[in-house]
Amino acid sequence: MTELLATIHSPDDVKGLSLKDLENLAVEVRDAILRVCSENGGHVAPSLGVVELTIALHRVFDSPRDRILWDVGHQAYAHKLLTGRRDRFSTLRRLGGVSGFPKRCESPHDVFDAGHSSTSVSAALGFAAARDLKGERNKVIAVIGDGSMTGGLAYEGLNNAGHLNKDLIVILNDNEMSIAENVGALSSFLNRTMTSEFVHRIKKEVEGFLRSLDSDVGRGVLRVAQKAEKSLKGLFTPGMLFQAFGFEYIGPIDGHNLERLIRTLEGVKKFDNAVLVHVLTKKGKGYPPAEENPSLFHGVGPFDRESGVVRSSKGAPSSYTAVFGNTLCAIASQDERVVAITAAMPDGTGLTAFAEEFPDRFFDVGICEQHGVTFAAGLAAEGLRPVFAVYSTFLQRAFDQVFDVCLQNLPVVFAVDRAGVVGNDGPTHHGLFDLSYLRIFPHMTIMAPSDENELRHMLFTALRVDGPVAVRYPRGSGWGVPLHEALVEIPMGKGEILRQGNAGAVLAVGTMVRPALAAAALLADEGIQLCVVNARFIKPLDRELILDCARRTGTIITIEENALEGGFGAAVLELLEEEGVAGVNVRRLGFPDRYVEQGEQSELRAMYGLDAEGITRALREFMTETSPS
Amino acid sequence: MTELLATIHSPDDVKGLSLKDLENLAVEVRDAILRVCSENGGHVAPSLGVVELTIALHRVFDSPRDRILWDVGHQAYAHKLLTGRRDRFSTLRRLGGVSGFPKRCESPHDVFDAGHSSTSVSAALGFAAARDLKGERNKVIAVIGDGSMTGGLAYEGLNNAGHLNKDLIVILNDNEMSIAENVGALSSFLNRTMTSEFVHRIKKEVEGFLRSLDSDVGRGVLRVAQKAEKSLKGLFTPGMLFQAFGFEYIGPIDGHNLERLIRTLEGVKKFDNAVLVHVLTKKGKGYPPAEENPSLFHGVGPFDRESGVVRSSKGAPSSYTAVFGNTLCAIASQDERVVAITAAMPDGTGLTAFAEEFPDRFFDVGICEQHGVTFAAGLAAEGLRPVFAVYSTFLQRAFDQVFDVCLQNLPVVFAVDRAGVVGNDGPTHHGLFDLSYLRIFPHMTIMAPSDENELRHMLFTALRVDGPVAVRYPRGSGWGVPLHEALVEIPMGKGEILRQGNAGAVLAVGTMVRPALAAAALLADEGIQLCVVNARFIKPLDRELILDCARRTGTIITIEENALEGGFGAAVLELLEEEGVAGVNVRRLGFPDRYVEQGEQSELRAMYGLDAEGITRALREFMTETSPS
Repeated sequence: MTELLATIHSPDDVKGLSLKDLENLAVEVRDAILRVCSENGGHVAPSLGVVELTIALHRVFDSPRDRILWDVGHQAYAHKLLTGRRDRFSTLRRLGGVSGFPKRCESPHDVFDAGHSSTSVSAALGFAAARDLKGERNKVIAVIGDGSMTGGLAYEGLNNAGHLNKDLIVILNDNEMSIAENVGALSSFLNRTMTSEFVHRIKKEVEGFLRSLDSDVGRGVLRVAQKAEKSLKGLFTPGMLFQAFGFEYIGPIDGHNLERLIRTLEGVKKFDNAVLVHVLTKKGKGYPPAEENPSLFHGVGPFDRESGVVRSSKGAPSSYTAVFGNTLCAIASQDERVVAITAAMPDGTGLTAFAEEFPDRFFDVGICEQHGVTFAAGLAAEGLRPVFAVYSTFLQRAFDQVFDVCLQNLPVVFAVDRAGVVGNDGPTHHGLFDLSYLRIFPHMTIMAPSDENELRHMLFTALRVDGPVAVRYPRGSGWGVPLHEALVEIPMGKGEILRQGNAGAVLAVGTMVRPALAAAALLADEGIQLCVVNARFIKPLDRELILDCARRTGTIITIEENALEGGFGAAVLELLEEEGVAGVNVRRLGFPDRYVEQGEQSELRAMYGLDAEGITRALREFMTETSPS
Repeated sequence: MTELLATIHSPDDVKGLSLKDLENLAVEVRDAILRVCSENGGHVAPSLGVVELTIALHRVFDSPRDRILWDVGHQAYAHKLLTGRRDRFSTLRRLGGVSGFPKRCESPHDVFDAGHSSTSVSAALGFAAARDLKGERNKVIAVIGDGSMTGGLAYEGLNNAGHLNKDLIVILNDNEMSIAENVGALSSFLNRTMTSEFVHRIKKEVEGFLRSLDSDVGRGVLRVAQKAEKSLKGLFTPGMLFQAFGFEYIGPIDGHNLERLIRTLEGVKKFDNAVLVHVLTKKGKGYPPAEENPSLFHGVGPFDRESGVVRSSKGAPSSYTAVFGNTLCAIASQDERVVAITAAMPDGTGLTAFAEEFPDRFFDVGICEQHGVTFAAGLAAEGLRPVFAVYSTFLQRAFDQVFDVCLQNLPVVFAVDRAGVVGNDGPTHHGLFDLSYLRIFPHMTIMAPSDENELRHMLFTALRVDGPVAVRYPRGSGWGVPLHEALVEIPMGKGEILRQGNAGAVLAVGTMVRPALAAAALLADEGIQLCVVNARFIKPLDRELILDCARRTGTIITIEENALEGGFGAAVLELLEEEGVAGVNVRRLGFPDRYVEQGEQSELRAMYGLDAEGITRALREFMTETSPS
């Protein structure tokens, strides 16, 4: 099955193949993707959908001289296989292995790092403008899905690209379903959800136009047109939208027909203006389980290739995400002010049950984190209690909208999922900055639960605060603790002492609480009695408790699954400074000032000394250093 | 001139007036705006442009029961005058006075705070969705300019609003010129810059459609159509765009014709779906100097009302903004890799001269900070040296794009203007968070010049760093220091000792360096000898210098014009912790954890103890507290 693929060392090797061979190559590429992803997990459906497109691009264009930019980048597996990374492809998404996203440091064929949505058009325009200023002549191609096209950044990029009208090719990979159901105007333009009402309006406009023409002829056409709603529907094509943006429009074409793709791209290559090529693809193409359930196979863990059944970690405790979703349903059934918002991630953020139970109170806004937050602000200003469930790294996209929420002190709850290291998706997806960037704004409250049961109470508490609140929790399973049915309010800004001790105080945040407790237990055996505090609140801090710890023990150790720059530990340092408490030995544990690689969550935590063992080591060392002896 | 206006205590008082009276009221409102703004400065042109629209809105709708949301909010002066704030209007933009933007805490008629662009549609959709869930029946109206409509957030909001098709009115205030020249597709849709090429393409599509109809009739129409390019142009109306978004489209209508406005809004009020009303207005309407120079009068300082001449502070030193612009031109003439980007602020960011001198290397991307940064990333990935000149508060909109730049370690220079307090524009516009939010990301370098001459050298230095660099500087005049013609590189990560002293070390950032020096001089007379350091770098810190100061004097005072949360002082605390330097007395001076009000820059700095006097006081107190006696 890998005869052809084994001969492809660079895109040059694709160029000589016959159409038949290219078709066989597509089969082999799919096989390689499925072989590796069934073991390693990955973005299966997106990558299977663009196999022919990728082969056609490398057949027609001359990468890396021609620049190919993959939006989000989760669909670039075939690209990796064809650009010299076949041998290492089995390491996909593993520690030290091939990244699941384009990475400039990995290959000259990856010209722009991706991970977050909707950046490709803007970046490609930069590439094209630079090329023209340098007087070079290469092609620049952005490949962007219809889901990513809903993001405001894509619109900004298209708008500016059409205006500048550079030699630039945008390939719209229209798979009729992004991560979740696609919404809004773009879908209309793509001729899928065009309502009869909409067609009716257009018809009226065209009628008006025809009436304005030579009257006899016009009226004649009108009669025909009135019978031809279907044609009128065709009149308003996606082409019109992109043409209005200043793009030449080509398509739609079948994205699984290699011959047609190659012919079209060969044609487009000769243009020297901004062109949009509309390609229709099927997510998960060629693998029936993924074709049938593209949402599940969008990003998936290891699965059985034969059956398509995802390998469940049987008996694993509920995930934080699931507990969040169930708890929100429970609260919402008691409080009708509670509404939920997701940016195209109903499954990923655990809102599927909520959406079913409370369809009127559930809003999937598409890949539009900015809008999600400002929409929530509007809901909150009218007295509702919106909960925006979002991955930590994607909330970065709405930083300025969070600022607006805080400025107005509006009661929006940010359910910040995937906080801390997320594992195999790597540096673009780790949620290592949220404590730092959310803590900056006045009025914000930030909590982190030490286990999944506490998450329930924190969510309940957050919805009773008259201002913005973030609750941040990690990807993956909880600790398997019992879940309390009755929800109780956690005292605002109060931490919880879990273990007494006088040698020093460990202030641990969220996921770090249990490892800190384990470390303290080990050190107790060595005669070092540490106090362990579940910080619970990152903002406001439990000033009283922390100051008492500092004064009583003279030693504070903070532990957080967040960047050290500006994080929880920094907040504790600020508190000690504000209170003029000098002479306290402080050590902050967390992630250093660098981007953290991909790998299993447990591997990464261990590498950075943030598992029980690493924490024990760090505490022992610090306590020895600072001991008065 | 204020007979009618004096009788308007709330919008109810507008409802009884005759058309003639309403027209007179418009004259009086303009007079009031000009009277106050010529003294206080303000957003004159935007506010003059919507006087009739505002009167019509309050005549037809029932604020605050009906919610009116003003995008950006700088056009809301007439709204303020008609909603009970006439008596206090002379305090506009002054310390303790009426805000230049809608503020919920100021009036129930201000239902959503604004300041940053493109938020109104998203927020209004939130208001509409909340209303429906609550079973209420009020109207929600968003008023948004064509400039704000270019922002990605507006697109996200429109897209989602059309999809939900709530009872929602969006008024597009099309003044044919936002802050600067408007760019891109929206302009095309608004029928202004539609190119003949574009018309040609549409024509071809329509021809195809007509050919597909009954052949005789179709061909007949075709002949007519071929002679009717004008009509074809009309066929592709702005209506089509908004209809595709799912909105009912009404317009365009004359935004200065009160009768027409009222009639239209009365009609629209009866709809129960998403409607977009396209209103044509003239920026600066009714005041010839502003009509002639709407860019100057967009946001303007005090001016002579008779002549329209802006009161210049004669003999004031060059602004940081001007020095930045001139320096960038000088560098660009030597280094052709240097290109400049603005998000619709060529004047405000000092790039006008650059745009004239290097038109091919200048990019105004519209009100699209996100795209501006990602576009810059693309340029940088191709070896150019893009400089994105942007206000500190607006760079917040591109936080996630800055993350992408840092992740790839791309040499993008962020010229962060308006850092620190900006004065009368108030909390939405102060640049008090950039040190905190930029410092979080690995690879970032951050500098702040102590005077306008140092800004020159820092810009020169920034353009020689192989990675992202932010240079942040304040609004307003420099210190009048001589400008060195020759540009020199500032040693990376090195601060500068400006005054020796052993009692303690003051580490001052940017604007705070001179006041710190003045304070140190005063305290020297009192026998307290402080070392004063111009920090220059916020990231990386001058570790050696700071640690030496800490060890030598035992006392560190940091001073920054930034929020204390996560700012420069926090970075210094982190450094001391990392190095295990305990027992140092540290005091951080900066802005506390609250939103800072409007007022003159000097007033605000004084209020928060960040002028020479306040710093002297704080230093004296701190040194007394911590003195070993």
